[in-house]
Amino acid sequence: MDEQASTDLVDEIANDRVRGASELARAALDNLGRLARERPASRSEALRTDLGDLAQRFIQARPSLAPIANLLGDWRHWLERQPPQELDQLRTTAAAEAERLMTASLAAQERTAALAATALGGGRRILTHSLSSTLLEVFRRLPGTGTKVILTESRPLNEGYRLAARLADWGIPATLITEAQMGLIAQEADLALIGADSLLADGSVVNKAGTLLLALAARQAGIPFYVACEGFKWRKDVQAIRLEIMDPSELGAPTWPGVEIRNQYFDVTPAGLVSGWFTESGFSRRWPPVAE
Amino acid sequence: MDEQASTDLVDEIANDRVRGASELARAALDNLGRLARERPASRSEALRTDLGDLAQRFIQARPSLAPIANLLGDWRHWLERQPPQELDQLRTTAAAEAERLMTASLAAQERTAALAATALGGGRRILTHSLSSTLLEVFRRLPGTGTKVILTESRPLNEGYRLAARLADWGIPATLITEAQMGLIAQEADLALIGADSLLADGSVVNKAGTLLLALAARQAGIPFYVACEGFKWRKDVQAIRLEIMDPSELGAPTWPGVEIRNQYFDVTPAGLVSGWFTESGFSRRWPPVAE
Repeated sequence: MDEQASTDLVDEIANDRVRGASELARAALDNLGRLARERPASRSEALRTDLGDLAQRFIQARPSLAPIANLLGDWRHWLERQPPQELDQLRTTAAAEAERLMTASLAAQERTAALAATALGGGRRILTHSLSSTLLEVFRRLPGTGTKVILTESRPLNEGYRLAARLADWGIPATLITEAQMGLIAQEADLALIGADSLLADGSVVNKAGTLLLALAARQAGIPFYVACEGFKWRKDVQAIRLEIMDPSELGAPTWPGVEIRNQYFDVTPAGLVSGWFTESGFSRRWPPVAE
Repeated sequence: MDEQASTDLVDEIANDRVRGASELARAALDNLGRLARERPASRSEALRTDLGDLAQRFIQARPSLAPIANLLGDWRHWLERQPPQELDQLRTTAAAEAERLMTASLAAQERTAALAATALGGGRRILTHSLSSTLLEVFRRLPGTGTKVILTESRPLNEGYRLAARLADWGIPATLITEAQMGLIAQEADLALIGADSLLADGSVVNKAGTLLLALAARQAGIPFYVACEGFKWRKDVQAIRLEIMDPSELGAPTWPGVEIRNQYFDVTPAGLVSGWFTESGFSRRWPPVAE
């Protein structure tokens, strides 16, 4: 696989505006497994260095997304710990390790979703924002339980439409609103539930812009605001997260002289606004999690 | 003017999604002045009843908009108080009274805007949402004062674009964002300022959906949230306001079976979230206003 093909794989992750953080991390691991098998190399030591650098390029492509830093960081550390070995053996084991991490990520997500679905299913009206693969797993478990979902368009790219389509497939009644309506409609919901792109060290939530507004609306309406988020999304470092600013043209707005168009994808919801976190270890009202 | 032409004038106000509440009230008064001159009538008593009914139709066309209820209600009460008179005299005086109320509305708006511009101009970063004719009057007074404006698209019909165009005309630097970004960007602003469609008896603010979220974001960011709103927007009655729900197709979303699309135009921001009200009488941190 030549340099251009590798760059294309990194760019694909960098430019993906549709998949959630965990899905993208698994896609990046899948790419790294393929690169482990196919990158040109004459010696295993050179391949190891090369793969470590490639993992770092994926991580830097999406600095707001903790699962990429965590899962690809784990893979990189695994690489560094390997003893000298034959080139073909390194290719095989590095690809297998990427596969193992993908499976672990998926299992953590499914366990998190199952816990949230059990706790929150059954006749409740759930208000959510944006699209999360973890939340899709929650909702997939809820048809026929009387659950109703209120969801947002999720401007600028309207990933709420994808969620609406899945809810329709599953026969879960839903109401689609503009983000602007979250404040008023929170009074009609029993709870707010979101996935997360990352959790900061103190339990604050990095997620699609608008999540902070949803948390504030939930508090104003007196309903709980829950996060469903597997441990791989937890950033253990305390350094300030860099919130990605995307192409302003995604808004589809006209341009005017002197008017900047801002397209910041993420916001940070303080842990104090979170009523509880679902992880694969259980539910906790405090962070770090203490299973209840 | 035949019945169809009158109905067309009412429908024009009912279907207007672009002009603010005071502008629409003045447009309705302009229509009533024209109807006073042109409605077929053989006797002044019949004309008076007919015009009163027409005023009521305009009021009922936009139940969320207090200026229409207040200004057209004033006109209707004026009609009821008139002594018996010649048909032509009633036509002339009723049109003149509509004109007088339009002028009074405009003067109140300009005075309110001038007070807000004086108090808030000068190097501040102002975060706003939706479009208000009162706020246009504020910003029109602020070029060259170092004011910067952060404004929202204002989905579904993006009236924020009209504000952006005016700010560009006036050379006021601005940043356009999606509503979803209000939470994060409030930290970059010095204050939030909005117009209002109506004020309820206790000072709560009926305005474009998303205003409640802006007020919550302002409180979270520790910046004041001000309302610039002339007295004609104050609903003196205490009955719950009916918040208009508009055509869901305005969202431009696909449709899915079992997914309702909601397009509620207004929300209500409790008076407790308002840091102060600008009216034509001055600025007040309390409601009802006490000039400071």
